[in-house]
Amino acid sequence: MVIGGDAAGMSAASQARRMKGPDELEIVAFERGHFTSYSACGIPYWVGGDVTERDQLIARTPEEHRARDIDLRMRTEVTEIDVGRGRVRARDVDSGAESWTSYDKLVIATGARPIRPDMPGADAPGVHGVQTLDDGQALLDTLARTRGRRAVVVGAGYIGVEMAEALINRGYEVTVVNRGKEPMSTLDPDMGRLVHEAMEGLGITMVNDAEVTKLLTGDDGRVRAVVTDDAEYPADVVVLGIGVRPETGLAKAAGLPLGNHGGLLTDLAMRVRGQRNVWAGGDCVEVLDLVSGQERHIALGTHANKHGQVIGTNVGGGYATFPGVVGTAVSKVCDLEIARTGLREKDALRVGLQFESVTIESTSRAGYYPDASPMTVKMLAERRTGRLLGVQIVGREGAGKRVDIAAVALTAGMTVEQMTALDLGYAPPFSPVWDPVLVAARKAAVKVRAS
Amino acid sequence: MVIGGDAAGMSAASQARRMKGPDELEIVAFERGHFTSYSACGIPYWVGGDVTERDQLIARTPEEHRARDIDLRMRTEVTEIDVGRGRVRARDVDSGAESWTSYDKLVIATGARPIRPDMPGADAPGVHGVQTLDDGQALLDTLARTRGRRAVVVGAGYIGVEMAEALINRGYEVTVVNRGKEPMSTLDPDMGRLVHEAMEGLGITMVNDAEVTKLLTGDDGRVRAVVTDDAEYPADVVVLGIGVRPETGLAKAAGLPLGNHGGLLTDLAMRVRGQRNVWAGGDCVEVLDLVSGQERHIALGTHANKHGQVIGTNVGGGYATFPGVVGTAVSKVCDLEIARTGLREKDALRVGLQFESVTIESTSRAGYYPDASPMTVKMLAERRTGRLLGVQIVGREGAGKRVDIAAVALTAGMTVEQMTALDLGYAPPFSPVWDPVLVAARKAAVKVRAS
Repeated sequence: MVIGGDAAGMSAASQARRMKGPDELEIVAFERGHFTSYSACGIPYWVGGDVTERDQLIARTPEEHRARDIDLRMRTEVTEIDVGRGRVRARDVDSGAESWTSYDKLVIATGARPIRPDMPGADAPGVHGVQTLDDGQALLDTLARTRGRRAVVVGAGYIGVEMAEALINRGYEVTVVNRGKEPMSTLDPDMGRLVHEAMEGLGITMVNDAEVTKLLTGDDGRVRAVVTDDAEYPADVVVLGIGVRPETGLAKAAGLPLGNHGGLLTDLAMRVRGQRNVWAGGDCVEVLDLVSGQERHIALGTHANKHGQVIGTNVGGGYATFPGVVGTAVSKVCDLEIARTGLREKDALRVGLQFESVTIESTSRAGYYPDASPMTVKMLAERRTGRLLGVQIVGREGAGKRVDIAAVALTAGMTVEQMTALDLGYAPPFSPVWDPVLVAARKAAVKVRAS
Repeated sequence: MVIGGDAAGMSAASQARRMKGPDELEIVAFERGHFTSYSACGIPYWVGGDVTERDQLIARTPEEHRARDIDLRMRTEVTEIDVGRGRVRARDVDSGAESWTSYDKLVIATGARPIRPDMPGADAPGVHGVQTLDDGQALLDTLARTRGRRAVVVGAGYIGVEMAEALINRGYEVTVVNRGKEPMSTLDPDMGRLVHEAMEGLGITMVNDAEVTKLLTGDDGRVRAVVTDDAEYPADVVVLGIGVRPETGLAKAAGLPLGNHGGLLTDLAMRVRGQRNVWAGGDCVEVLDLVSGQERHIALGTHANKHGQVIGTNVGGGYATFPGVVGTAVSKVCDLEIARTGLREKDALRVGLQFESVTIESTSRAGYYPDASPMTVKMLAERRTGRLLGVQIVGREGAGKRVDIAAVALTAGMTVEQMTALDLGYAPPFSPVWDPVLVAARKAAVKVRAS
């Protein structure tokens, strides 16, 4: 039995079905919404017009799942998990009818829910989240109806900056209101500053260090402005991108173990800790950060898919593990690419690691090659040992995916000195003779040696 | 004392100078040509017009080196190394005057020379190599003078395919004549086949399995056709791109140890084996392949620069090593990107490794995202252990540099099962939710488990 019909849940169901046929394993899945297996990460690009049809974001429809012998119950919300008796209570969203269904093995994939600020006006028409396909459609409907061209995005994390791009692409004047000192708090502020400057270069108004206190509505009841401690920003549409929290109300009520970030805690096989027959994956769980050794909550489709794959294999009688993450993420605002992996300075300090930090400027291609674009790479290494701790990259085309080099090196526990010898792909259209990541590693190695 | 003024030699000189000032260390460097520290890898892009000025390819001029207290002697060819007495004999190329100069420490960085076929017509006007800046200028002069628009490239390795692109960009009808079954013999033939098809799609005529027997010249003495075993290809200009050999005549005459590929053999510090005061690096040495455990000859600017860095550090009294390579290379023909790292099938067979091989098709970005381009990834893993052995990639924009993921994983000795859990950068504009390299790793892991 699977609760939740998106990435983790349906990956688990599909993989379990690959492992065992319908004669051996019955699979029931509950989804409270209208869609299954869709790319929530793609919503900003649909809103921005890069993706033209909602259905392009759907990897597999309910019908396709059913054709693979998965008993998928749409618009059916699970309202209680009874771990002791191995059953869940589910409610038909449309009719309101409720009933209990028993399971032998349970997969919890309830995802995350967007943080909605508890303030006046937060629920007014014209204020939108972008977590689900329904949210995306509602926002597009608002954009189609709205006369004005002023958009305010609240929050400057991945969703915030991606929605800023989407709204710029739709021809809006965009203001991003951000609580932090700089946008992209997943970067150190010095790197976030580069994002800030680039966003302003794109015509986006960036307001940092600002706490939104309320949203004002007009006579028609629709949102008309975003109010912070010390200013007011007129808005014809407001997009909330202030992060998500694990959707673990059901799990908590069932007495299942939650971590400090509110996510379910699992073992390496994605089995809920202390449980024999309950697995969990995707945005509702916490994952082990292999660099800090601490649990984190990261809502990201690529992890959800891996979790589903691991759970499906284990539920299907095989063996697989999800060892953890190193915290890799990549994003873009128009042609600006932003990437990070591992620890920021404040993460390293929090876990008590002493480190050296270097920042270098280089280019995506050989300097003499056309379209070589500037790139800034920041690298953190542990003092003495030289172990790589983290990398942050801000640049243009060709910058973002270079973070994968560091992601693999982090996973392997490499030192920056070892990284200086990495045999990376070189040709003038692809890289300077020293790849920017190698330039950073060399500089970091020098600092570590002197430390 | 440094012999050779390009990447390895002058990197070594510069790094040694950084380590020790002119009061502590005198540095003499001999270069027989007109240029120092230039990007030979950039020549195809200069010929093709992407790079407009020759001098853009020069990272540091003789004057710049001299300004850093390096006694650089241009147009001075070393004709003999006397290791026993610690001296070299050098000849002024213009005057012919010869003299001996003593050294305490010697760095051999004599590079590689292009293989020129020993056949009639190979030295005719209109036949060009592209190893040096002088070669590039001579080819550009020929192109400027030539009325006809038919170019034949002999060889279909990196230089061959890059020159095919350069000549297409110059408006030539290009025929590539290749000895092997498919172009890019650094790939397995099944992957080379994809390059073959793409090159034909670009309007390049690809002739495989063809041995060039002679070049025909016209009444004016200039080349007019390339003749193979069974055909004749009219040519107004011919470019030879059939590889290079280490330039180790001097080293051999001095009794220094050469490997099976004709390159100098060194230890990890880049010191010539059996020598205390002689180092060597760049295109004239063999390097350890960390995957096969065997020595190889790879002429590539990125290695030469690393060697120079290591040598300069050691000569300057520090300590650094070059552990070896995994055989990463990346190239492009117009918008086709070609990359490889590690072992091909035939390499694995030669060293006695049993392996599983998988090939997958995926896309550079999420399938629904604009400009998602198809990409083929081939992955080899050792049977039983699952250790990654090699990766080959052919695709369009965003394909080539993904080979770095595999290059780091190879260096770290990862298994394909471990790779399936890699936390790589994901967002729809950058990758499908499963990066193509992860898709290949998953499939390879399944095969290894079943093996």
